[in-house]
Amino acid sequence: MMAPMESIAFAKGHGTGNDFVVVPDPDHQLSLTPTLVAALCDRRSGIGGDGVLRVVRTAADPELARYAVGPEWADAEWFMDYRNADGSVAEMCGNGVRVFARYLVDSGLVAAEPGATPELVLGTRAGPVVAVVGDEAVSVTMRMPRMQGVSDAWLGERRFTGQVVDCGNPHLVCPLPPGVALADLDLSEPPRVDPAVFPAGANVEFTVPAAQEPLVDAHIRMRVHERGVGETRSCGSGACAAALVALRDRDRARGVVAVDVPGGRLTVALTDTDCALTGPAVLVASGTVQLAALA
Amino acid sequence: MMAPMESIAFAKGHGTGNDFVVVPDPDHQLSLTPTLVAALCDRRSGIGGDGVLRVVRTAADPELARYAVGPEWADAEWFMDYRNADGSVAEMCGNGVRVFARYLVDSGLVAAEPGATPELVLGTRAGPVVAVVGDEAVSVTMRMPRMQGVSDAWLGERRFTGQVVDCGNPHLVCPLPPGVALADLDLSEPPRVDPAVFPAGANVEFTVPAAQEPLVDAHIRMRVHERGVGETRSCGSGACAAALVALRDRDRARGVVAVDVPGGRLTVALTDTDCALTGPAVLVASGTVQLAALA
Repeated sequence: MMAPMESIAFAKGHGTGNDFVVVPDPDHQLSLTPTLVAALCDRRSGIGGDGVLRVVRTAADPELARYAVGPEWADAEWFMDYRNADGSVAEMCGNGVRVFARYLVDSGLVAAEPGATPELVLGTRAGPVVAVVGDEAVSVTMRMPRMQGVSDAWLGERRFTGQVVDCGNPHLVCPLPPGVALADLDLSEPPRVDPAVFPAGANVEFTVPAAQEPLVDAHIRMRVHERGVGETRSCGSGACAAALVALRDRDRARGVVAVDVPGGRLTVALTDTDCALTGPAVLVASGTVQLAALA
Repeated sequence: MMAPMESIAFAKGHGTGNDFVVVPDPDHQLSLTPTLVAALCDRRSGIGGDGVLRVVRTAADPELARYAVGPEWADAEWFMDYRNADGSVAEMCGNGVRVFARYLVDSGLVAAEPGATPELVLGTRAGPVVAVVGDEAVSVTMRMPRMQGVSDAWLGERRFTGQVVDCGNPHLVCPLPPGVALADLDLSEPPRVDPAVFPAGANVEFTVPAAQEPLVDAHIRMRVHERGVGETRSCGSGACAAALVALRDRDRARGVVAVDVPGGRLTVALTDTDCALTGPAVLVASGTVQLAALA
């Protein structure tokens, strides 16, 4: 039984410009309908965000507890119930889970010694992930990206050849040919992709090499068009996909790649078994939303 | 002397989809730089809004107190220090001042009897205005719109003839010819206007008649392109300009006009001496912003 709510607590945060409304609901007291999610995410009549991160104890929500099967879930006390801005459910969001981890520590829901770098196991619909919460950056384990084949993206009359990468969601990574700059691209319209390769569409990343830096094996700049959304300031899985391709183009299978997106810098570390996404995760504000005031 | 701030209180509200970050600063303790305004209004790395409404006592801010010359300022205890999302100063904003008035009453900064409809005199850089705060709607006195001449707006190859209206800012109101629907217009690019008539550009309103309703003398639907912004969900002065033209087209000089904008309904009442803009003004959320977290 859900009690009628008048107001709910919220926080707003972002990771490299991918922003979220955080809704703490530790004991599963809230009824977060698609309509309410869409109203919260409306950038003018609500709070505004790319999605909602509901913070709930895995065991408190029977619907979510059903995902928690297997020993890797043993320490997943908290579950990221991620919803897209349109109210639909999504399995995973690399920038979202980093903001989620930041919230758990900053809010005190997870106890952390001052100066410590807590490591958390967090439940998601795509399985548990591990997050390491530093002072500035938060790292999270992502699904290993897998290279699949070659395909094309079209922007107007212009064709770009790219690498198909599966990150759980479909990506096409297009390193730009010499002489073409990221700023030259018009991403106001979605890039067209081959429906035979991408029956459900694709996220398309355009990349260029950037100046080599110490401590990384590759450094690229990237713009991304997310399917169903448009150009965004950042895409966590897209950064992982682009990092895999950048290493391959340097004849490496594994390594560390700095990926500069419009919203900041993400770093991807690929080993034989793991993909870790690292970057800033910031909580900007917190407060109370009046539910009756939402459209 | 401004003390260094770590966090500030805020509220978020909107009037027909024109949204604002409200920053209470009754005693002028804050230093609201253009950089801070732009960071607060950033929709991804900040709170997000079309502008900031700083709530300050007129007498507390020497810069603003200089506007308060003349007997009409006698009751203007509070000043709406309005800033555009880019950090620049603006004189007046019809939807903003309605949200501002709502905030004063809801926050208790202005005492109101339960069930009363408080009438407030509010300072703005364009002079004092009178706001009446109802349960749902807030009315505010606007500058009288003045008809000036005829000019054209172009959307691509298409020409629309309109009425030039001065509301303090420049407007071109284009009633669509029969057979053209509002939904047919592509406002993703700014309408082109005659630079000889509008050396600083214009806000362009496109209107169509709507079903006659009781209690109003005219009823129109409107889309608006605000100069320097793009298509918006609402424009208070644009509604006043369009109302004047709608009455003129019905051979009236004065009356009440319902103006349906994408963000809701505004009502404009024109008398020989006054223009009153009425519509919903909603506070959605309140809380605290961490200044160090802003980009």
